[in-house]
Amino acid sequence: MTLYLIGIGLDENDLTLKALEAIKECKEIYLDNYTSVGSDVEKLEKLFNKKILLADRDLLENNSKSLIEKAKKDNIGLLVYGDCLSATTHISLLQEAKELNVKVEVIHGVSILTSISETGLNLYNFGKVASIPFENKDVKIAYDILKQNKRLGMHTLLLLDLNPKDKKFLTIKEGLDYLLRNGLDKGEKVIGCSRLGRKDRFIKFGEIDKIKDVDFGKEPYCIIVPGKLHFIEEEYLLNFK
Amino acid sequence: MTLYLIGIGLDENDLTLKALEAIKECKEIYLDNYTSVGSDVEKLEKLFNKKILLADRDLLENNSKSLIEKAKKDNIGLLVYGDCLSATTHISLLQEAKELNVKVEVIHGVSILTSISETGLNLYNFGKVASIPFENKDVKIAYDILKQNKRLGMHTLLLLDLNPKDKKFLTIKEGLDYLLRNGLDKGEKVIGCSRLGRKDRFIKFGEIDKIKDVDFGKEPYCIIVPGKLHFIEEEYLLNFK
Repeated sequence: MTLYLIGIGLDENDLTLKALEAIKECKEIYLDNYTSVGSDVEKLEKLFNKKILLADRDLLENNSKSLIEKAKKDNIGLLVYGDCLSATTHISLLQEAKELNVKVEVIHGVSILTSISETGLNLYNFGKVASIPFENKDVKIAYDILKQNKRLGMHTLLLLDLNPKDKKFLTIKEGLDYLLRNGLDKGEKVIGCSRLGRKDRFIKFGEIDKIKDVDFGKEPYCIIVPGKLHFIEEEYLLNFK
Repeated sequence: MTLYLIGIGLDENDLTLKALEAIKECKEIYLDNYTSVGSDVEKLEKLFNKKILLADRDLLENNSKSLIEKAKKDNIGLLVYGDCLSATTHISLLQEAKELNVKVEVIHGVSILTSISETGLNLYNFGKVASIPFENKDVKIAYDILKQNKRLGMHTLLLLDLNPKDKKFLTIKEGLDYLLRNGLDKGEKVIGCSRLGRKDRFIKFGEIDKIKDVDFGKEPYCIIVPGKLHFIEEEYLLNFK
């Protein structure tokens, strides 16, 4: 039997044929609603004609063994929004399964890490990814990563914290406030993005001061701080002025 | 009418429902066989029940206007292996279409940039991507990017040059020779990968000296040089010793 780690992408029709095939094989399907957020659970249930169980933080971080043990007897699927191996949580799960001699199959999905190319920025020129948590008063690390990337001309993707269970999402304005408080200049040019990878995605490029007041609509959100721009990137960004 | 840029992923069943829907709408389907390589054209033709035209370097770099003009009258699809916006070629195409008032739709696919997580390395800790070309005697840039990333503890993905038309692929051994010639130590630990994102993918972790002699089988290939390792990453890498 197999534990399937299945990336389901960012939008509902991002499901791959491979993912659909694997889901068909599974006796139980879990959806990771701790590390990210995406399509509607009911819609997925209809599409698969299967009940979806929610895997929260407690299950994934503290009781992952129970999930893996189940995969000894039956095919079990864990659906993950975006790609399926973006968080260390999933790498740990993979390792644990290996140690318990449970077969794992990884099925990749469309990820935010490539959908950021919709801004026209070259994916090859991004540095480390930074995350801004809700409680960020004493958090220096996201800003430090940005600074390091910037010094080398690399672009930075800043992921904003989320708590899908309580429908809480750090906003772009809050993320920019964090950056300003740590030393970024209000004239610095940034890109605010919501719902990347979906039809109704919204991208806005400009100085922090202006982007702060933009209404980005529904989540999920992220911020990109460009590094050194190639003229093709620069030209394309102007579409989002 | 619309020009669809469609990422088709790394493996044949990586096609998303969104991609399949778009392909159905297209009168003409082109496959970019200049920037990458992947599934079998005949298999794709069978799956879509449509003829696939090959888009080579000349069409994509010098005659892209003809492609865009066609999309004024009919729905045209350009299939790209992996994600559809990984190369500047595609960003340029997008920009050109905007200027000619042709509607473009971007459909993302599974990418090498996230499939590298199969090594257990955290995607958030990768720096800039470097590419090693066939003619690399006087090329410093890939090595310089690696050095910069490494200094900051970031992992580096090194893409190896390919010429699908002539079935030529820079091998992992050749890539490692480039790195050694530029100053990397033969005791440096690297990860050699072939066919990431596919069922028969092969990953090997170890000192350059040892990896150089490994038979990685069929293309495509890449090399990853890890930066500072988290203990979860380190533990997972040992699976590929």
